[in-house]
Amino acid sequence: MTRVRVDLNISLDGYSPAPGTSPDNPMGEDWGPLVQAYTATRTMQSRVFGDTTGRGTTGIDDRYAAAHFDGIGSQIIGAAMFGLHSFPDDPEWKGWWDDEPPFRTPVYVLTHTAPRPSLVMKGGTTFHFRNAPIEDVLAEAVTAAGGLNVCVGGGIGVARDFLRAGLVDVLHVAIAPILIGHGNRVWDDLRGLETTHSVMSEVAESGTIHVTFTR
Amino acid sequence: MTRVRVDLNISLDGYSPAPGTSPDNPMGEDWGPLVQAYTATRTMQSRVFGDTTGRGTTGIDDRYAAAHFDGIGSQIIGAAMFGLHSFPDDPEWKGWWDDEPPFRTPVYVLTHTAPRPSLVMKGGTTFHFRNAPIEDVLAEAVTAAGGLNVCVGGGIGVARDFLRAGLVDVLHVAIAPILIGHGNRVWDDLRGLETTHSVMSEVAESGTIHVTFTR
Repeated sequence: MTRVRVDLNISLDGYSPAPGTSPDNPMGEDWGPLVQAYTATRTMQSRVFGDTTGRGTTGIDDRYAAAHFDGIGSQIIGAAMFGLHSFPDDPEWKGWWDDEPPFRTPVYVLTHTAPRPSLVMKGGTTFHFRNAPIEDVLAEAVTAAGGLNVCVGGGIGVARDFLRAGLVDVLHVAIAPILIGHGNRVWDDLRGLETTHSVMSEVAESGTIHVTFTR
Repeated sequence: MTRVRVDLNISLDGYSPAPGTSPDNPMGEDWGPLVQAYTATRTMQSRVFGDTTGRGTTGIDDRYAAAHFDGIGSQIIGAAMFGLHSFPDDPEWKGWWDDEPPFRTPVYVLTHTAPRPSLVMKGGTTFHFRNAPIEDVLAEAVTAAGGLNVCVGGGIGVARDFLRAGLVDVLHVAIAPILIGHGNRVWDDLRGLETTHSVMSEVAESGTIHVTFTR
């Protein structure tokens, strides 16, 4: 059965960092400390950073990183995550990820502008651009997933849209035990999520607190 | 060495419930679910609710509940927690706790009004009323503690005053895995607390996430 998953990296005070404006540090100064333990995992080193030597941590953080990629049949991301807001006038822009993005599935990019033609990338990723209600895009993504799961990949605004609409079956938050004091507030308008989903928490060797809401 | 401790019960979205206005439910509707696992502990059943039969849970939550009471030599609370705001004109008001309050130490009550005479209660509790800067009251509480610890007991506004002033050595938060969506925001203005304190987290059998900042 297809399930809709959201995985987020957040701070103990409930923030996802707001992206910075520096080209050298597009995710902002708080992103590094927040995802440090996650990017150190063997799964992330291999899947996202292309390491082929088996480097990376293999504990609880890695188990969650692997679960993030496991059984994903299609993905949905926002226009900003793809880079449409940063490069609105470049019809040749193909995202931040080079010729072979780490998604390796169909990826539906939500946009409020006129959709572009789909982009077939190396390694199994195809970007489709959709200007449509999230429910309609999700229906298309579910079909494309062919019985596997749909990952709503971010940014945080897109993830929150799906959460508020009650469309998410599994929400996993990796909480770094740091207080960053500002950014995008993750939890607003989600009162009572524990009444529709069950909750399971565990602490990784790194100190990261993994909380998973499942229905 | 005397350490200054704060113990808080908060929600996953970082709130301490705002007290309600109903006399039947003075702590508000969210307080019950938030502290359910904590009040179920053997320590709380014994220390706060007077159970003498050994009833209550004995796992990780109980270990934290016991640590809360362990080695406390004096305590500091706000006027609202004592009830001065609810009964400002009753000079006979002696707090919410009956003749034998569960504190069993000197308790310094912060007030912005004219101090009242100290109240000697049964069981070792004496209430002292102080209209003075928190640093001065803390110095007096440290002396009264006689080498034991000082507990800053709440409400949340008083705890946050001490945290923001850098006066807290141990902050323990018991995070219930629920989203309540409103109340008093616990984490504001505490960015970087993990740089002055070390952080340790663990998950209790109840699902409560215990996070402790220590310096």
